[in-house]
Amino acid sequence: MKSPEAKPVDPLKRRIHTIIFEADTAAGKAFDVGLLILIILSIVVVMLESVVPIDQKYGHIFDVLEWVITALFTLEYILRIYSVGNPWKYIFSFYGIIDLLAVLPSYLSLFVQGSQYLMTIRAIRLLRVFRIFKLGNYLMESHILIQALRASRTKIIVFLGAVMTVVVVVGTTMYLVEGNAGSGFDSIPRSIYWAIVTVTTVGYGDIAPVTPLGQFLSATLMVMGYGVLAVPTGIVSVELAHADRQAKLNTISCPHCSREGHDEDADFCKFCGYKL
Amino acid sequence: MKSPEAKPVDPLKRRIHTIIFEADTAAGKAFDVGLLILIILSIVVVMLESVVPIDQKYGHIFDVLEWVITALFTLEYILRIYSVGNPWKYIFSFYGIIDLLAVLPSYLSLFVQGSQYLMTIRAIRLLRVFRIFKLGNYLMESHILIQALRASRTKIIVFLGAVMTVVVVVGTTMYLVEGNAGSGFDSIPRSIYWAIVTVTTVGYGDIAPVTPLGQFLSATLMVMGYGVLAVPTGIVSVELAHADRQAKLNTISCPHCSREGHDEDADFCKFCGYKL
Amino acid sequence: MKSPEAKPVDPLKRRIHTIIFEADTAAGKAFDVGLLILIILSIVVVMLESVVPIDQKYGHIFDVLEWVITALFTLEYILRIYSVGNPWKYIFSFYGIIDLLAVLPSYLSLFVQGSQYLMTIRAIRLLRVFRIFKLGNYLMESHILIQALRASRTKIIVFLGAVMTVVVVVGTTMYLVEGNAGSGFDSIPRSIYWAIVTVTTVGYGDIAPVTPLGQFLSATLMVMGYGVLAVPTGIVSVELAHADRQAKLNTISCPHCSREGHDEDADFCKFCGYKL
Amino acid sequence: MKSPEAKPVDPLKRRIHTIIFEADTAAGKAFDVGLLILIILSIVVVMLESVVPIDQKYGHIFDVLEWVITALFTLEYILRIYSVGNPWKYIFSFYGIIDLLAVLPSYLSLFVQGSQYLMTIRAIRLLRVFRIFKLGNYLMESHILIQALRASRTKIIVFLGAVMTVVVVVGTTMYLVEGNAGSGFDSIPRSIYWAIVTVTTVGYGDIAPVTPLGQFLSATLMVMGYGVLAVPTGIVSVELAHADRQAKLNTISCPHCSREGHDEDADFCKFCGYKL
Repeated sequence: MKSPEAKPVDPLKRRIHTIIFEADTAAGKAFDVGLLILIILSIVVVMLESVVPIDQKYGHIFDVLEWVITALFTLEYILRIYSVGNPWKYIFSFYGIIDLLAVLPSYLSLFVQGSQYLMTIRAIRLLRVFRIFKLGNYLMESHILIQALRASRTKIIVFLGAVMTVVVVVGTTMYLVEGNAGSGFDSIPRSIYWAIVTVTTVGYGDIAPVTPLGQFLSATLMVMGYGVLAVPTGIVSVELAHADRQAKLNTISCPHCSREGHDEDADFCKFCGYKL
Repeated sequence: MKSPEAKPVDPLKRRIHTIIFEADTAAGKAFDVGLLILIILSIVVVMLESVVPIDQKYGHIFDVLEWVITALFTLEYILRIYSVGNPWKYIFSFYGIIDLLAVLPSYLSLFVQGSQYLMTIRAIRLLRVFRIFKLGNYLMESHILIQALRASRTKIIVFLGAVMTVVVVVGTTMYLVEGNAGSGFDSIPRSIYWAIVTVTTVGYGDIAPVTPLGQFLSATLMVMGYGVLAVPTGIVSVELAHADRQAKLNTISCPHCSREGHDEDADFCKFCGYKL
Repeated sequence: MKSPEAKPVDPLKRRIHTIIFEADTAAGKAFDVGLLILIILSIVVVMLESVVPIDQKYGHIFDVLEWVITALFTLEYILRIYSVGNPWKYIFSFYGIIDLLAVLPSYLSLFVQGSQYLMTIRAIRLLRVFRIFKLGNYLMESHILIQALRASRTKIIVFLGAVMTVVVVVGTTMYLVEGNAGSGFDSIPRSIYWAIVTVTTVGYGDIAPVTPLGQFLSATLMVMGYGVLAVPTGIVSVELAHADRQAKLNTISCPHCSREGHDEDADFCKFCGYKL
Repeated sequence: MKSPEAKPVDPLKRRIHTIIFEADTAAGKAFDVGLLILIILSIVVVMLESVVPIDQKYGHIFDVLEWVITALFTLEYILRIYSVGNPWKYIFSFYGIIDLLAVLPSYLSLFVQGSQYLMTIRAIRLLRVFRIFKLGNYLMESHILIQALRASRTKIIVFLGAVMTVVVVVGTTMYLVEGNAGSGFDSIPRSIYWAIVTVTTVGYGDIAPVTPLGQFLSATLMVMGYGVLAVPTGIVSVELAHADRQAKLNTISCPHCSREGHDEDADFCKFCGYKL
């Protein structure tokens, strides 16, 4: 999350840069809070527009609000490009693309109908919220979470691969068993959809087995899924405990070789044997 | 949970205070048990009143019971104010407000219809149950639970923020995909409600996708939610293990070798054999 | 699970006792396996009798089988009383009562209709299965499980108490919000039933909110339940890890004071300071 | 997963063997990737054939594709038998049987209708995917997962046994309570199916209690299942943490103080500073 921009030299540019890109000054913080409120307001407007009775009553207010917010976001985007040291680097950075995608749908909606719903992509802009709390320990915590998820990546992929194979085999079997029972198992893809709904314990009930054999098979799948549900939890728990310990413990550095990462009960550096 | 009141000097006041506010004497314990039974009875009455056939048959008995209980609660509230050293401190304490809210709805129901249902706020008074078991280890255990939840607060907030962003984006996408399929995705807020129902694996089935693309997207959401369900569990497990260890290990460090981490029942240092 | 009977002296009694109560000899093991098959057969018969088309076709076979099994169980029960050293102790022990309850329903069904379904109580007799594997490590494992559950008892009670309070308050609120919407929230007890179905993520969908406010409240309950689901898992994980470690580690006993339960990294006895 | 074949001496055989059975050379890797694509294509074809409107439109293309793929798989199977050192060992190995089962259904479908659905057994062939990543750490991770699941086997069996007993008893009770309420509890097996759907928190809602007593009983079952859901998670977490630690710690004990438990990257003993 290192800021991808170099600081500009021009005083006006620098001032705008401090306000827009940083959250350490009072003005910068106020700007960020205002931006967050605008983003949330914009998402609420898109949501309410989709509710037919509300839209019929307040539709014109929503239209005005929508264009005011889009204008402000466009201004912000232009100012960002203007004030940043290396504009192209910003434009193609993660946040740069998201900022552009936040204003594009409004302009597109003039030509293409329905594209205004793409505006919910603005929800991703809410990630900026973490910048305000930068001084707090939220960043560290989210860093631990991401590290734990990254460390469990290979295990989760292996696990999901195994689950997917089971889901395909069970889905096909259920199609053969329940296909003619009129219970919704109309095709193999739909049966696989049912198997996923079941194994994740969501269980809508829009498709449910009615034959005794189908019910027996799905009960077996559930009990299996029940035991198996434990596996990703176990994986993440273990990695989280590990990441947490890492974050908490790497404080002592060896006075001889300056290396870190020693265990809590270590008396001697594990790399050079020097007494800690 | 420290008692917010100073002890009164007047012997009658002190006696009432001992009975009502403490649970160390036999009379105090009997009072607390009686109070608990009254609270549960009162909640049961409110519940049964809402079942139409039962209310038609026993409605008048419920009315009498309700007013008897309210009278007793009012008396208790007055006695608490009378016997406590610093009445205002009690009135504005957490339990003081709950005690007032426990009797207010009954009186309000004389003027405003429907307000008697607010009485279920009495359920919160059940928290007093912990006072009876004060001598047991329930308090310590709930302390560990609260400490673990507090320690995982920032991680859980970061996690819920990420989940909410996904839910908003997926909900909007599903509105676009399923909006015209007559399957209940009538508006974006309703689609987001569906996404929450799905990602938490509740899965009512009142709204369920019917188009192949919608079913594919929701299957993806489920599998994601499946892996992600593990994260809060992992967080709480790790913090709980930590809080538990903290509570169990004593904080004595060996006077000879200064090492820590001894068990609670240890008499001698496990590293050098020196007497603790 | 210590056997509640003293060994008889009479050789015939002792022989029967060895076969029926123990599983160390070939005859005893064969007896136990036969018993298990009989129990499962008996449960399958009761199940199939409840399926109308199957019962109409094979009802008479089931009746015969049922009485044969009951006769065998009765014989077994009498032999147990005969061969055991202290009959009354056996009769009032856990297994003694279960063994009696396994035959009573059949005789009762001669007089009271419907009581034959009580026979599924025989399922509990399946617990005897553990005796066969007594030599294996199943007993140790189930001991660890029980110990972990017992250790987490107080925490789980505190947790369930908190969840119940939330469920009562939310259930009542939903009754007030959805009561007149015709969506199944007919009474407070039924709304509490809905709240339990939701918070445990079962989600039948037989009762589901239809008003926007009701859907918003239930979405909040789900997200809360989602975070909270983690708590019992965390509790049990921690206790299980603890019980597991205990079971694995208490092998070294102090050569001086013979006490056990030292940590893996202990060099000196924590009770008497003697070098391990 | 050791390759069950001896290497052949004949240069052509050896060349084919290297390509087909190994993934270390560029040709071998290309072959494996091509094979995976063919397998996935073949599964997709079987899936799409089951969707009636798609099959009506593209049915003949699917037929051609199906036979081309079957021909290629047959050729591959023959080449495997030809190039392997010990053909019988391969034919009766796990992968040998799967490879045969992958082509049999197509030929069978000439005689027996419906047997083409058995082709989804090809999904199991996807397990070969792990061979491509052989050089990565996927194998190690899946090894850890399998080891953790194997270590928790006895505990999971004990646990599932207990859950099954509860499910049978509760299912029968619900049949007695709800049997005549027209809510789907038609027979004991179906009630047990409902109990499994409930205790695993899947909750389709195709069968749901309607009587107050039935709803009370099922709410109790849910709360129990809620607490109990934690147990397998706890078991797997503990074993996974154990397997993970085992895999990460090296087994070197210090030559000076004989202590173990050093990290994998440790060069010096962390307890006495001696070079490992």
